[in-house]
Amino acid sequence: MNVPPEVRIVEVGPRDGLQNESVHTSVQFRIELIKRLSNCGLSTIEVGSFVSPKWVPQMADTDQVLRYTQGCNDVQFIALVPNEIGMKAAVESNVDGIAIFTAASETFCKKNTNCTINESFERFKPVVKLAVENSIAVRGYVSCVLGCPYEGSVSVDKAVDVAKKLIDIGCYEVSLGDTIGVGTVNATRNLLQSALGEIDSGAIAVHFHDTYGQALPNIVTALDLGVSIIDSSVGGLGGCPYAKGASGNVATEDVVHMLNGMAVTTNVDLDKLVETSEFVFNYLGRSPSSRVATARLGQFN
Amino acid sequence: MNVPPEVRIVEVGPRDGLQNESVHTSVQFRIELIKRLSNCGLSTIEVGSFVSPKWVPQMADTDQVLRYTQGCNDVQFIALVPNEIGMKAAVESNVDGIAIFTAASETFCKKNTNCTINESFERFKPVVKLAVENSIAVRGYVSCVLGCPYEGSVSVDKAVDVAKKLIDIGCYEVSLGDTIGVGTVNATRNLLQSALGEIDSGAIAVHFHDTYGQALPNIVTALDLGVSIIDSSVGGLGGCPYAKGASGNVATEDVVHMLNGMAVTTNVDLDKLVETSEFVFNYLGRSPSSRVATARLGQFN
Repeated sequence: MNVPPEVRIVEVGPRDGLQNESVHTSVQFRIELIKRLSNCGLSTIEVGSFVSPKWVPQMADTDQVLRYTQGCNDVQFIALVPNEIGMKAAVESNVDGIAIFTAASETFCKKNTNCTINESFERFKPVVKLAVENSIAVRGYVSCVLGCPYEGSVSVDKAVDVAKKLIDIGCYEVSLGDTIGVGTVNATRNLLQSALGEIDSGAIAVHFHDTYGQALPNIVTALDLGVSIIDSSVGGLGGCPYAKGASGNVATEDVVHMLNGMAVTTNVDLDKLVETSEFVFNYLGRSPSSRVATARLGQFN
Repeated sequence: MNVPPEVRIVEVGPRDGLQNESVHTSVQFRIELIKRLSNCGLSTIEVGSFVSPKWVPQMADTDQVLRYTQGCNDVQFIALVPNEIGMKAAVESNVDGIAIFTAASETFCKKNTNCTINESFERFKPVVKLAVENSIAVRGYVSCVLGCPYEGSVSVDKAVDVAKKLIDIGCYEVSLGDTIGVGTVNATRNLLQSALGEIDSGAIAVHFHDTYGQALPNIVTALDLGVSIIDSSVGGLGGCPYAKGASGNVATEDVVHMLNGMAVTTNVDLDKLVETSEFVFNYLGRSPSSRVATARLGQFN
């Protein structure tokens, strides 16, 4: 097995995680969470989104969250942007990077963003134009690369084609999202081998959900193929909207613990990360889905 | 990555799992559970133990459990045996195989069995003699091969030495137990590379706990090295006595789901296994720690 010497983790908890939690979180809490995550050594953090609060009330006031976290040096803050209106707000907020999103499944794209995949690329044009004009980096997301809650299986060609198009329009990296966690080791390998034929390995991130407990073996598979950018969420924040009680995003602690045990550098302080997990889940009043956080916080002394 | 085409799963839920649950289970329930597991296609099941009920009340009446499960064809039933008294009861019960157990850590051995590792081998002599006389297969367990709750780190040489001794005294296979789940990918690889230098790969089983979520990546590592026997527990039955709320044995469903996704044959019916998990955890009144069972049982239709 080959693994890259260093991995960059993209912490998505404050956006992809909190957005899917049932407890509404205050701006103050979100600011504190982001400061703590920055202090863990995480170099890229998805801090919020500029989606209308009518659709995603949890991410309202992301501009304020950004205003009060500007002091965190050496950390790249990213915010999700759905359209030109959101992009204008992102520019105002001085965010370091934005993320645009589409899917490898037409039905998911329609249900999630109310447009076809092709139409989503039309929406990206003014967004990317504004990003370029304001020197804001653009990250791309493809949802449902290994399966769709509505369509079931998704073709590798379709997923890679959408990912490649995101790179072509100017994304510095594209995150391949196994949105419902149905990916397996062989499916992950097939997808990534095909993606790596079209896109540089330094521009591919993997975004696994641990719904079926397969996130870590899938990440091992991705590492073995040379992928070195991994999305994850502190404590496994987020849950799964398609199965009651199931896990959502793979937990950052579990990923970092695994990478530590593979001698892969992440620059993330696991002790501080577990403390941050405790802070978040105390606020939410539930247990983290991270196995590492659960074991470490439950240890008998 | 290389993986064996077929894996044999050793289901340890009815013994290693139930023994560590706080809810006392009836003989009738244990019989029903074993029949259901047999019906899932599991070919080796650890059904109970002949340890004094004074120490392990959950495993009392294992002779009765065996009496009423004899009809399950083509399934190897194994019972844990601590000493000659237990072995005599095992012989009476017509069990297919027994398991003897020691540890790679002196402190753990002392706390768990009240003897040194060398003394444990003295105890094995009359047990193995009776097993040979009665054509009963002997499986060996080594606890704490990747770390000890009392001593911390454990030397690879010690773990392999103890495992090799178990093979030398007549065990057909030895199960290397990461009792507290602290094993990582590199530690697993180091241990198994060393073990495979001394013991045939067909005689090595791995027994991971999912305490820190590392069981599946560790199993991938073991498969990559040619190991093809995996211990697991339906639903993750068992929990961890060293960390409140933490996972114990890796869940059989999660292992089978992963192996299915690697095109590795197990002959286990995952649908029936999830039904069996539901049956067990309804009885126990708690949720399975298996991610696969949680996701499948929580799916919205």
